[in-house]
Order: sequence, then C-alpha cells, then structure tokens
Amino acid sequence: MKNYRVLIDCKDEKGLVYKISKIFFEKELNIEKNDEFVDQENSKFFMRSEVSGKVDKEELYKALNDILPEGANINVIEPRRKRVVLMATRESHVLGDILIRHYDGELEVEIVAVLSNHDILRPLVEKFGIDYFHVPARDLKRVEHEEKILRLLEMFGKIDYIVLAKYMRILTPDFVSKYENRIINIHHSFLPAFIGANPYRQAYERGVKIIGATAHFVNDDLDEGPIIAQDVIAVDHTYSWQDMRNAGRDVEKVVLAKALKLAIEDRIFVYSNKTVIF
Amino acid sequence: MKNYRVLIDCKDEKGLVYKISKIFFEKELNIEKNDEFVDQENSKFFMRSEVSGKVDKEELYKALNDILPEGANINVIEPRRKRVVLMATRESHVLGDILIRHYDGELEVEIVAVLSNHDILRPLVEKFGIDYFHVPARDLKRVEHEEKILRLLEMFGKIDYIVLAKYMRILTPDFVSKYENRIINIHHSFLPAFIGANPYRQAYERGVKIIGATAHFVNDDLDEGPIIAQDVIAVDHTYSWQDMRNAGRDVEKVVLAKALKLAIEDRIFVYSNKTVIF
Amino acid sequence: MKNYRVLIDCKDEKGLVYKISKIFFEKELNIEKNDEFVDQENSKFFMRSEVSGKVDKEELYKALNDILPEGANINVIEPRRKRVVLMATRESHVLGDILIRHYDGELEVEIVAVLSNHDILRPLVEKFGIDYFHVPARDLKRVEHEEKILRLLEMFGKIDYIVLAKYMRILTPDFVSKYENRIINIHHSFLPAFIGANPYRQAYERGVKIIGATAHFVNDDLDEGPIIAQDVIAVDHTYSWQDMRNAGRDVEKVVLAKALKLAIEDRIFVYSNKTVIF
Amino acid sequence: MKNYRVLIDCKDEKGLVYKISKIFFEKELNIEKNDEFVDQENSKFFMRSEVSGKVDKEELYKALNDILPEGANINVIEPRRKRVVLMATRESHVLGDILIRHYDGELEVEIVAVLSNHDILRPLVEKFGIDYFHVPARDLKRVEHEEKILRLLEMFGKIDYIVLAKYMRILTPDFVSKYENRIINIHHSFLPAFIGANPYRQAYERGVKIIGATAHFVNDDLDEGPIIAQDVIAVDHTYSWQDMRNAGRDVEKVVLAKALKLAIEDRIFVYSNKTVIF
Repeated sequence: MKNYRVLIDCKDEKGLVYKISKIFFEKELNIEKNDEFVDQENSKFFMRSEVSGKVDKEELYKALNDILPEGANINVIEPRRKRVVLMATRESHVLGDILIRHYDGELEVEIVAVLSNHDILRPLVEKFGIDYFHVPARDLKRVEHEEKILRLLEMFGKIDYIVLAKYMRILTPDFVSKYENRIINIHHSFLPAFIGANPYRQAYERGVKIIGATAHFVNDDLDEGPIIAQDVIAVDHTYSWQDMRNAGRDVEKVVLAKALKLAIEDRIFVYSNKTVIF
Repeated sequence: MKNYRVLIDCKDEKGLVYKISKIFFEKELNIEKNDEFVDQENSKFFMRSEVSGKVDKEELYKALNDILPEGANINVIEPRRKRVVLMATRESHVLGDILIRHYDGELEVEIVAVLSNHDILRPLVEKFGIDYFHVPARDLKRVEHEEKILRLLEMFGKIDYIVLAKYMRILTPDFVSKYENRIINIHHSFLPAFIGANPYRQAYERGVKIIGATAHFVNDDLDEGPIIAQDVIAVDHTYSWQDMRNAGRDVEKVVLAKALKLAIEDRIFVYSNKTVIF
Repeated sequence: MKNYRVLIDCKDEKGLVYKISKIFFEKELNIEKNDEFVDQENSKFFMRSEVSGKVDKEELYKALNDILPEGANINVIEPRRKRVVLMATRESHVLGDILIRHYDGELEVEIVAVLSNHDILRPLVEKFGIDYFHVPARDLKRVEHEEKILRLLEMFGKIDYIVLAKYMRILTPDFVSKYENRIINIHHSFLPAFIGANPYRQAYERGVKIIGATAHFVNDDLDEGPIIAQDVIAVDHTYSWQDMRNAGRDVEKVVLAKALKLAIEDRIFVYSNKTVIF
Repeated sequence: MKNYRVLIDCKDEKGLVYKISKIFFEKELNIEKNDEFVDQENSKFFMRSEVSGKVDKEELYKALNDILPEGANINVIEPRRKRVVLMATRESHVLGDILIRHYDGELEVEIVAVLSNHDILRPLVEKFGIDYFHVPARDLKRVEHEEKILRLLEMFGKIDYIVLAKYMRILTPDFVSKYENRIINIHHSFLPAFIGANPYRQAYERGVKIIGATAHFVNDDLDEGPIIAQDVIAVDHTYSWQDMRNAGRDVEKVVLAKALKLAIEDRIFVYSNKTVIF
C-alpha cells in the first residue's frame, strides 16, 4: 500500500469527476482526500486527490490520459522529501527560521545547500550541518555570477525548489526560465503594493496602517510572479520604517514557511499568473 | 435546467465519489462545485455538490440511496429563499445589521417576522416593512412564554431557521428540540471562553487581549451547541468592559451574518456537536 | 465641570509635557487621558489630552500659545455632536451601515443630509427621517455638478465632515481644497495597491490572497490622501471578482465606521500626508 | 547622556503628569517617549517614560517619591540586557525560535542557560554555545526536583526572567512566589478557554473555528496568571487535533517572543491579575 498525489488540470467538461474517480475505483485506489475547483470564467478544471493503494504510476497516468480532454496536465506523485536549495544574502531571520523548522521536523525537506553572495551566514548554516557555498558577486556581471550558481546547482543533481530566503539580488529571465514555478521568493510587502527596493521605507512614507509579506513564484517581472501566500500585521504612526522592518520579520517567516509547505505537499497549481491551492 | 445542492453524509467506504458521480453522470447532471471531506478518525464521509441539469428530485434521492451505505443522510435541495424568523430583545445593532443586509440584497432570505420579549425594536423593524410581534414575558413562566412564541411560529407556516439576534432569554430544551440545528445564536465571546451572562465583563476581569464572538446552533446546554463561525479582535488595558462591548459589536454582526449565509446556502453539516462547513 | 479635548502639535523641544501639564494644573484641569508622540525623525511633537474642569477656552488657548514654540497648532475642543454630510451613489451597503449605526446610537453624529448623484438610495435614507438630496450629474460638467453640491453644502451651515460612502465620482481639487482633511473616503482596496477603478477586479486578476479596504482623507491625488484606517480579509482562488466584492463589503463598512469614529472623537492629526492617531 | 525608563504606578490624583514632568524638567531630562493610563474604575495611575539625560538614579527616585502619593511604585531603570533562563521539556519549536531570534540579534537578552527535565534538546542548545542543564525529574518529588532547579538558578546569579518555552511540568506555589511576575509561560490556547492538559485536543473536540496561544506570567493557579499577549489563527473541520497542534506552533512562537520583548523593554505593569502594557 502506497500513497499517491494525483494532480490534474484540464479544460472543463461534464463527467470529469466521474471518469477520474472511476479509474481510481477500477485500480482499487482509495481516495483519502479530494479537492476540485472549476474556474467557470475560463472553463478550466482542477483536481488534486490523495489516494492510497497499489498501482503502477505509468499505467495510472496512461489510464487518466486516455479519458481526459486533450492538453490535460496529469501529475502522479509519490510523496518523498523534496530537495531544496536555499539562497540568502545577509539577513539571518528568514533563513534561520527555515533551518530551525527543518531541524524541528516541521519542514519535511532535504536542504541540499545554502548559497549566498556573502559569507556572513555561514556560521549559522554550518551549525546545522548543512553545506554553505559562498558565491561572491563582486566584479562579476550578473550573468557571470549566475553561471557560477548554475554550475553549483547542476552539481547538486535534481532540485525541486529554490527558496529565496531574503536573497537580495534580481535573477535574470534566463536563470528564472530554467526553474519555472520552482523558485519561491519572499517579498516584504503585501504585493502588488510596494514593488521593488525597501518596501518598508515605502510603506512608512505612504503612512499605511497595515504591512505585510508575500510569497510568490519568481517570473520575469520583478515581484510580479504568481502569489502563493500573503499575510499582514497592523502598524501605526509610532513605527519608524525600521520598526516596520522588525515587526514584519515574523510575517515574512510565517508566510514563506507556509508557501514552502504548500509546495512540498504538491498543493499548488500555477495558472495564468495565479495559483490554485488545495 | 435547474440547480440542485446535494448533501450526503455516511459511513466512509471505498468508491463513494465514483458511485455518486456516476449517478450524476448518468442523470446528465453537471457538477458545478464539489466538496468532500473524510473524517478519518471516525470513518465518516461528507460531500456537498452543486449540480445543474434536469432531474426528478425523488428519483435522484432513490438512486443515491441505493448505492450509499445504510444510514446515509441524503439531501437533495432546490435552492430557494429560506424563510427566517428573527428573535431579539433590546439591542438593535445585530438586528439592524441583518435588516440592512437583507434590504441590501446581500442576505437572500425571506424574513417572516421579528419576535421580541420587548417592544423597543418595533420602530426599527417596521421601517423595513417587516412584521413585529411583541411577546411579553413578564409574569409568565418560561414555558408559558415559549408556548406563545410557538403558537406564533406555527402560524407562520414553514420556517427554515430561527435566528437569535441578541435574544437574551434562555430557551428550554423542549423548545430547542422542536428546531434541532435550526436555531442560530450569536454569543458575544469566543466560546468556550466566557459562557453565560455578560461575557465582556468576564473578559475584562480576566484581562484578555482578544475578545470575540461565536455563532452556533442552539442545543440543550447553554452556549455549548455546534459552532458555525467565530472571529476575534484585539483589545488592550485601556478598554473598559463597556468599550469591549462596543468594540465587540462589529464582530457579533459579521460573525452572525457569516453563519446565516452558510446556513441559507446549505453549506453546514452538523456532526457530533461540531460542524463540517463547505 | 466640562470636558475638553486639547490637541497640540508643534516642533519638539525639551519640557513640552511639563509646560503643557503645568498650564492644565494651574487652571485646575484634571487630565483624564493623555497621549503623546514624538516623531524623532522630523523632531515633531503631538499631544492629545482629555481634560475636565472649568476653563475659558480662549484663555486656555492663549496660555498654551504663550509657552509653545512658534507655529504650534493648538486646538481646544468642547466635545459636541459633529455635523456630517454623507455622499453616495448607488450602493447601499456602506450608507446603510452608517445609518443603522447612527440609529443605534453608536455613531454620535448629526447626519445633516445625504447627497447623491442618483435617486436610488432615497427610500433607504428617508426611512430614517434623514434629508435626501438628488443632485443629478447628467449633462453637467464636473464643475457645474460640484457647484450644485457646494450650494447645498453652504445651505446646510457648518459641516464638520463629508463622508463619501461609496460616492463614485472624483472630486476636483477645487472642491477638495474647500474641505481640507474633512472629506473621508472609503476605498475598496488596501491602498496603495489597486488605485482607481474596480479594485476588486484588479485584485482578482493579480491573484492576491488578501483583499482590503482603506479609509482616508481625500486630497488632490486620487486615492493618495492620508490613510486613517485599513483592514483586510483572506480570499482564495475560489473567489471570482464578484465574490471578492461581496466579501469586501464588511471590511469597507467596518473600516469606514472606524475612521469616522476616530474623526468625531478628534483623535486624528494629519501630518505630511500621514495620520497620527491617538 | 544616558537613557532611563521610569515606571510609575500609584493612586490617581490631579496634577500627577505635571508633577512628574516637572521633576524631569528640573533634572534636565528629555522625554523621548511617554505613555500614561488612568484606570478610572479603580482610580489608578500608570506612567512609563523614556527619558534621556544625566541623572543620579537614586536622586531621581527620591525626587519622584517625594511628590507621589503614598504607596507609589517607582522604578528607574537603566536599560541593559536582561538575564534570562529558559526552561523546556521535549518540544524544540518554541525554544528553537527563541534561540534563533537571539542569534539574529532580535531578542536583546543574555540567555544564561537552558534547563530541562529531559536531555533531548541539548544538541540544539549547544549549537548556539549556550549552557544546557539536564535536571531529571524521575523518581523525585516535585519539591525535590524544584530544589535542584533552584540551586542552579541561585548559582547563575541575578536572573530577570524565567521563560517557560513549553516546559510541561507544573511549578509549585513556593517556586512561583520566588519569581513573582518574572516567570513567563506560553500556553497553547486562547485562555481562559482550554485550561490544562492538551488544549488542542480540547479545541478539536469542542469544534472551535479559531485556536490560539497565550503568554502570561505564572502565578499559583494553573494558566490563570496575568495575560501579556494572545493571538489566534483560523482552523476548520479538516484539522485533526494534531493539525491544530502543528498550525498552532507559529502562534505559540510569535506570542511568546512578543511577550518576552515587552518584558525586556520594561513595558509591562502587573495589576490585579492583569497587565497594563505600553
């Protein structure tokens, strides 16, 4: 008996739930959990099932593919620890939070390595027995720096997600395209407010009464990728922008951890620059 | 083409989604929205489907009943305006909020009447052209008072829900049993904290930093029925208990309206003194 | 014995609290509540005191003016019901909410009148015995329409605040300048995200997981005035933009009511396009 | 130039702010931040001032004592790193969170040591170069175990706060009385709901839609000490009690960290089993 996660998205049509659940039934798979969503506006069907039983993954894929509309995306996943690379710059709070959650057993991932353009966070990372790679950016063109990173990433073998834990450099479209919907960033504002540099300073200057954080997949446009999770906290006039930054740390940590958990549990569909999350 | 809401709960077993969706498929019903939940601990299956098509309700019921485990609850509902009776005492904020939401078209119910043990709220209610019945409780035993209310309720014909919009009298088990899981109350605390009288005073004296409100179905035990919705707001040491009461009003209003909307959209299952809400 | 609210803002310097409280003491005023804030970055001092006693307002003003730095703003206020004009267009939920709060005694204002560019909301407003003025905008230039409104406003006598309860027309700088920091608007997004038209549609298209509302003073730039209050609620992929709009109504209502209460209790300082709120 | 925090609470009377600020003025102390609160119901005055200047602490105390009502509590504090002992049992998430915040520079305390009745958390603590003391409780009476702990605590010298970071043993009144209002506990429910053991299981069985955490000072009655901070998160029917426990971790961490920060910044007054927090 094994567990599988089956993720399907396709054009909506009548009878999809019946046809899919028929295959599960015929293959003697038990549905432990099932979520569906139909985007009526775009006539698009999404389904995520947790099933248990004994099945050949390839055969299940084929059986589903036979009955689903053309162009369907079908993903039959055997849950396993996802392999994750963390990238950071100077700040330790988000990175440290991930490390402690991982140590604690809360984040069921394998942290392959931490990469940074500085050498500041090494002592923290190495406390937890995790490899730390310092890839200095000084005197390098953006592309040259990324090539060094890419070489490391290739060396690591298969990677499921790259998590930008306050990595403060912008990635090129070329880099991003190699890991489509697999790079998760935490931005320290409730996007789309305060795109770009120093959002806390921007928030302070605008005099907002709420600040937030946004975890999103990275795409070509700065801070404009599909949003996975957001949260906010109240602030008031007594907060300097540094106070906002300090207060915002907890939100950044919690939101990124939430997004990462959704990703490693295969709960996220990306679709027209948005996410469907079960 | 009509819309139906199909609510099913039964013992869990393999193939339920398949068997149910097969019937929908055979009867040419299109699934617009589908939610399922399995309570693994108690091996209990819940499903709520919004389907569209043309079907005989009785036949659909029978077809489902044939394939479901013994003891299944099956509910095939044609959406219509639910008929609701409101009961209140003196305070106008919750009652007024329901009236304005109803006027606004947000609450798609028919408000059959407002009953009150006082005559204070009559001018407000009659502004909206709704019948107001004053049923004084003075000099009456609890049962005598309730008999008068029951006689009115019977006179009104079929009632779907009774909403206690700050009705400050305790109902007898006898009364409650006549409207099982159909009386919705708003209690001004985050239950189970501060059961009983003046929860804001209790909250003040305990020095809590959060106050809340709870909408629940009424059962025999005071404030212990199945919880439908809860929400909270932050308070601090500057709040007197009256300040808490004033601040709590918005939460009471929003939470009760939310619960009522869930009820009229047939989204609530009651189960072992809890609710499953889709 | 009377109550006064004393609002002071000025350049910060040593001894301000001492000098101000000395005057209160000498005039035998008792401080019931006192709030101070120093904006260190701009060396600016804010203070709001609730005092009780017997004093000549002019004399108190003069005494304070004598000891405060040049350019100090001093406001000695005897609490009274503020006179408020509401402006709305078609939607009834925010307007209705204010009317019911007012009826309920929660909003201690005098609602002088409701103005609208449509005649749709008249029946609702007149239920509460409040004057309704329909000022059609059709075939009028913006300035001509505003002139009609201004004439009405002048007719009403002294007005403390104009509240835009989903008034869907943009006011000219000329109009705004006549009521500087006295026009309160509710915008249905967490500004500065989604400025302008149909923010719920914008939010839907961006795929945010949080929507909100912002109450702010109106200034020359659309949706860019000083923010008074904001709040948010969580949404997810199942929300169409209409669902977001419906869900957002409660936030709009609660946030505007909160802002209005702060205004009528003289708790707001406006300062470099921000608010200091005690 | 030094900074001082002056905390005063006493019977309320006219002129207190004047008299206190007069002394600050005469001693050439600049008020950087000032908060006052009058509990009208009990005629009690609270004030916390951050002042800067050059003053003899003893003299300032005496000057204040001379002008304040009898029985006033006056605390003149020179900010310094508070010395904190952490106590934990088996769970690492709260302890780990404090360690990482401390490492990160966010929690400006000196962590003197971690005590535990188990030896499980040693590797985590020692990663951060902090002393770990295993004080086994097995075969010991409660008093005997506490004596061992007390001996260690005495050995450490002056301690400002003991933080129970999921320390799962109940302390005796005797122990507690030695550290009155200096032991901070995190309880994993929104007190006063779900006092005692396994609050998540209790919450699950009650079917609540919100769970929370409460940081409070420990007094003689289990989970009934003065509340410092609380927060909550939404849950639903899909949460098993273990899911609630996992989801609750973030709230526990954030609430305890918040309470600890308030404590180390000398922002908390304890008063009739409640807290006044500036």
